[in-house]
Amino acid sequence: MAVIAIIAQGAMGAGIGRRLSGKGATVLTSLAGRSAASAQRAAAAGMRDATAAGLAGADIFLSILPPAEAKACAAWLAPALEAAPRKAIYVDCNAVSPATAAEVAAILAPTGAAFVDGGIIGGPPREDGYTPVLYVAGPEAERLGPLRDHGLDVRVTPGPVGAASALKMSYAGITKGLVALSSAMMLAATRAGAAEGFRAELARSQPELLAWFGRMVPPMPDKAYRWVGEMEEIADFTGAEAAEIYQAIAGFYEGMAADQAGTREKAAALTAFLKDPA
Amino acid sequence: MAVIAIIAQGAMGAGIGRRLSGKGATVLTSLAGRSAASAQRAAAAGMRDATAAGLAGADIFLSILPPAEAKACAAWLAPALEAAPRKAIYVDCNAVSPATAAEVAAILAPTGAAFVDGGIIGGPPREDGYTPVLYVAGPEAERLGPLRDHGLDVRVTPGPVGAASALKMSYAGITKGLVALSSAMMLAATRAGAAEGFRAELARSQPELLAWFGRMVPPMPDKAYRWVGEMEEIADFTGAEAAEIYQAIAGFYEGMAADQAGTREKAAALTAFLKDPA
Repeated sequence: MAVIAIIAQGAMGAGIGRRLSGKGATVLTSLAGRSAASAQRAAAAGMRDATAAGLAGADIFLSILPPAEAKACAAWLAPALEAAPRKAIYVDCNAVSPATAAEVAAILAPTGAAFVDGGIIGGPPREDGYTPVLYVAGPEAERLGPLRDHGLDVRVTPGPVGAASALKMSYAGITKGLVALSSAMMLAATRAGAAEGFRAELARSQPELLAWFGRMVPPMPDKAYRWVGEMEEIADFTGAEAAEIYQAIAGFYEGMAADQAGTREKAAALTAFLKDPA
Repeated sequence: MAVIAIIAQGAMGAGIGRRLSGKGATVLTSLAGRSAASAQRAAAAGMRDATAAGLAGADIFLSILPPAEAKACAAWLAPALEAAPRKAIYVDCNAVSPATAAEVAAILAPTGAAFVDGGIIGGPPREDGYTPVLYVAGPEAERLGPLRDHGLDVRVTPGPVGAASALKMSYAGITKGLVALSSAMMLAATRAGAAEGFRAELARSQPELLAWFGRMVPPMPDKAYRWVGEMEEIADFTGAEAAEIYQAIAGFYEGMAADQAGTREKAAALTAFLKDPA
């Protein structure tokens, strides 16, 4: 029975913790300084509180955080890893650029712990059996069998450390980028009084895209605040060729998050646009 | 038999000219100052050279140009329209923002000619029968029956002058925007050595999008230079909410156009990515 450590207890971290504990793994986390809501989510997911030393001595450590916190997590755990006689394999699962993943690896290198680059495609595991894919890359990536044994879909993607992060960035750049573009155009068409004609034309000539928007856009407003940092990582990933596009998309999601914290007018306009007139 | 005037003789203008002349319309254009290639395209499309006075006296005048030339075309024809005893209905078919369409209308208003706002969705008409849709809006939009009688697919979209332009902007903002995002991500994944894994994940979880990219991305490099001005119009259309996104996409297409005029390395990388490995 494997011991898996997870930081932190957000929707994805707790969802993965629950899947692993439900399939027989011992799942550890750190609740030091965390909110009561986090402690409740952790308890519901079968995650037990542990010290940094406890986490560092697990079989596998999963970093599942907002991208801006990826490096701080490594720096926080590094002393405990350095001191641990038997060191957890450190898996950075965050939506970060390959350059950020390399910085995380560099922070951990002096500890002697093995490092695996990861990226998650999909939403949190669900009770109905749905499981996202955890892509992993690098020379130690084959050592994550215990995660598979406890119900995760772990796939090694070809390439060095950074390849799984690059896959995640590319994928999110298209999917979350398209959610931004389509939302911006639905809002602009609505303001211009052209929503009805625009929707009819999408239904006529791009029915697959319209159906995709119907699935992907409505959940966005509640998640927009989390996507800002991810878009900034994608800007870092693309380099000069498209960095400004993704910086601007980060700004769009900041605007969506502000609207969602306020009047929610934009979310209402998107819902109205996507409502099937039939 | 209707008399239709068209400026200019690009792929779309000549394609529409050919359809109209093939279906019995008299099609006029102006070849003054145009290249030999334009004159050849016009002749092949059955378009006859005429003076500004001749164009202004047609039944319908279609402005089909790069968006940056939309206002200049109106200013050029205005004196002839003013002088014409029987004035053509002026249809701006260009990919311009509603604000630009309103400026074109304002230039023409003193001439007394009727103005229709238009926007074309799709590529030029083809010999195999394919026809794009010309959306039109505004109080005079119902008067374009002669275009339908001569083989065009003309549809009135609800709303005032500007609604057809808004429909076109919204549609192109999604389709040409998605071509830019997907191309940028394919290029970035390729540079990061993650192309194989990224393509496999798209095939697994976004097969409809991957098929869409396979149709829409390969023709893009040759057209990128034309899309720069259109993206700038879309930036104008969206306002502050997403203007920076589309300004940045215009910059991306400038980079694609420069690559296409040079080494064509980006086009080659996109072709390699999209080639079916099966």
